Amino acid sequence: MPTIKDVALKAGVTITTVSRVMNNRGYLSEKTKEKVHQAMQELDYHPSEVARSLAQKQTTLLGVIVPSLLHPYYSEVINALEHHASILGLKLLVCNAQRNAQKEREYIDMLKANKVAGIILCTQSHSSVRSLVNLPVVTLERSISPSVPAILCDNEMGGHLAAKHLLSRGCKNLVMINGGRSSEERVRGFTRTCEESSTFFHVVQASKRQFNQLDYADLINSLFIENHPIDGVFASSDVIAAQVIQICHKRGLRIPDEVKVIGFDDVDLARLLSPALSTIHQPIEELCAWAIQTIVGWDTTKQQSRIVLPVNLIQRSST
Amino acid sequence: MPTIKDVALKAGVTITTVSRVMNNRGYLSEKTKEKVHQAMQELDYHPSEVARSLAQKQTTLLGVIVPSLLHPYYSEVINALEHHASILGLKLLVCNAQRNAQKEREYIDMLKANKVAGIILCTQSHSSVRSLVNLPVVTLERSISPSVPAILCDNEMGGHLAAKHLLSRGCKNLVMINGGRSSEERVRGFTRTCEESSTFFHVVQASKRQFNQLDYADLINSLFIENHPIDGVFASSDVIAAQVIQICHKRGLRIPDEVKVIGFDDVDLARLLSPALSTIHQPIEELCAWAIQTIVGWDTTKQQSRIVLPVNLIQRSST
Repeated sequence: MPTIKDVALKAGVTITTVSRVMNNRGYLSEKTKEKVHQAMQELDYHPSEVARSLAQKQTTLLGVIVPSLLHPYYSEVINALEHHASILGLKLLVCNAQRNAQKEREYIDMLKANKVAGIILCTQSHSSVRSLVNLPVVTLERSISPSVPAILCDNEMGGHLAAKHLLSRGCKNLVMINGGRSSEERVRGFTRTCEESSTFFHVVQASKRQFNQLDYADLINSLFIENHPIDGVFASSDVIAAQVIQICHKRGLRIPDEVKVIGFDDVDLARLLSPALSTIHQPIEELCAWAIQTIVGWDTTKQQSRIVLPVNLIQRSST
Repeated sequence: MPTIKDVALKAGVTITTVSRVMNNRGYLSEKTKEKVHQAMQELDYHPSEVARSLAQKQTTLLGVIVPSLLHPYYSEVINALEHHASILGLKLLVCNAQRNAQKEREYIDMLKANKVAGIILCTQSHSSVRSLVNLPVVTLERSISPSVPAILCDNEMGGHLAAKHLLSRGCKNLVMINGGRSSEERVRGFTRTCEESSTFFHVVQASKRQFNQLDYADLINSLFIENHPIDGVFASSDVIAAQVIQICHKRGLRIPDEVKVIGFDDVDLARLLSPALSTIHQPIEELCAWAIQTIVGWDTTKQQSRIVLPVNLIQRSST
C-alpha cells in the first residue's frame, strides 16, 4: 500500500506539502495541488484506507513520550504530531516522562498494554531499548540504538550556521551555551566553524539541574563577569537565548549593538521576545510528518535507521 | 469511596498539596505531610484503588479537548492535567480542536467510542452540549451550560487586580486589550475599577483573526498612534503582553518608566520576557486538580455547577 512518502516522492514535493494539500491548509499554488492530486491518483493513495488498515492491525492510538510538557519545543512537537496523526485518523496518547527513566519504562508498558500502533519517543533512556522489541518505535531528535529509527534535524549544520552568522555580523569573541539536550552535534558544528576562522570562542555546559528547571540565570551572569567582553552568544535553545536577552538588559548591554544573540529551535517564543530572536529553524512539521509516516508505513525489512532533515537560519532583530 | 477532595478538606490543605504529598513533589513541611497522611489514613483513602474502581467502570483514559496546542496556556494546562491524572493512574487522550466546532464534535464522538472515563473541555462550542449527555464532562475556564460543571478562575477579580495595580503605580491613561478568549469578566473587573477611580481608560477588542494567529501587532501599533499617551496596558493574556513589550521597544517607549504592562495567565513566557512581565496568576495546577477530581468523583446527584478559584497578582519588572 502506498504511503504519504511515496506520494511526496512522486509529486516531487515534501511530505508537509502533501499533508497540506490533503488538509487544504496554508497557501498552495494550483500547480502544486494538481501535482499532488495526480500523484495520489496514480499511486491509488487513500489516506483513510491507510488508517483503516492500521486500525485492523492494532488500535488507532499512537503513543508519544516526551521528557517535559512545559518546554515550548515539546508543545510544538505535540501540536505537529497531533496534526499529522489526525490527517490519518489516528489519535495521540501523550505521556510526560518528566525526565525519569522509571516513569518512561512504565509508560512504555502502559502503551503496549493499550496496543498502540506505535510509539514516538522524544526521551533519552537507553535502558528502555530492550522493552521496545516487536513494536513500531521511532525516536525524534534522539538516537538511542541502531535498531530504532531516528528522525533528526541536522544539528551539526545548525551549529555551523549559527557560528557563521555571528561571524558575518562582526563578532570577535563568541560563547556557546549548551543546555544539555542532546546537542553535542550543535557544539561540533559551532566549534569547527569558529576554529576554521581562528575566532576566540568557548563553550559552556549547563548542569542537569539548570536544564530541568529551565533556569540558566546564574550561568549566564557568570559568563559576563568572568570573560573577555563577549559580543556574540549562541544558545542551544530559544529558552536559553530568552534568558541571555534578559541578562543583557539587566546589565545594560544593548542587543544587537553590543551583544548579538542567536538561539536554536525557532519556537513561537523566539518571535515574541524583545528584540525578536534570530535562531536556527528546526523543521518540526517535517520531523513529525516523517515520524508518523515511519510508524504508519512500518516495515522492518526496509527501515532506514536515520533520517536527517536540514535546518536553516532565521534572522531577526537580535543579531 | 473517599476522594482527594475529602482528604484535602479533612487535612485543611488544598488538593494540590495533597497531590504533592502523594507524589513527594515540591517543598512540604513535615507538619503538612503528617496532616495529609493522617487524613488519608482516617479516611482509608488509597489513590490506586480510586483508579482501579474507575477502571472497572470504564477505561482509565481521560479525554481533553483544547482549542490550540500552540498557545502556552494550554501547554501548561495539559502538563498539569497529565500530572494530576497520572497520580491516579489515568492517562490523557489529547485532542486539538483547532478552534473548529465540527472537529470538536468529531473528537467528542471519538472519545465516547473509546469509552473514556470523562472529558475535560477547554473549548467553547455550545453546539456540543447535546452530545455530552450521560458522560462525566467538565469545562475548564469555559462555561457552556448549567448542566455541565465549570472550573473557572476568578476572572473578574483578575481584571480588578490588574487595574488596581496599574493605578497604584501611578498610571493615568489605561488601555485593556481583550484577546477574545472568554474574558468578558476580566473586562468587567477592569472597567469597574477604572470607573470607581475616575481614571481615563478604554478597552479594545482583538478580532478573531488576530486571536487565531496570536498576532496583535497591528492592533497594538494603532493604539499608540491613535490615542492620548497611554501609560498603562492590561493585556488579557501574557502572549498579547509580550507583543505590547515588543512594540514599546520598537517605538522607543521605556518599560516600566513610560509605559507599564501587565498580562494575564502567568505562563512560563511571562518570566522569560525582557523586562519580566507582571501578570495575574491563574492557579492552573489547582484548576486542573479540580477538573480531574470532578471527573473521578462524578456524582450527578451532588454536582456543583461552578467552582471558582482565586487569582493573584505577580509583580515583576514590567510595572
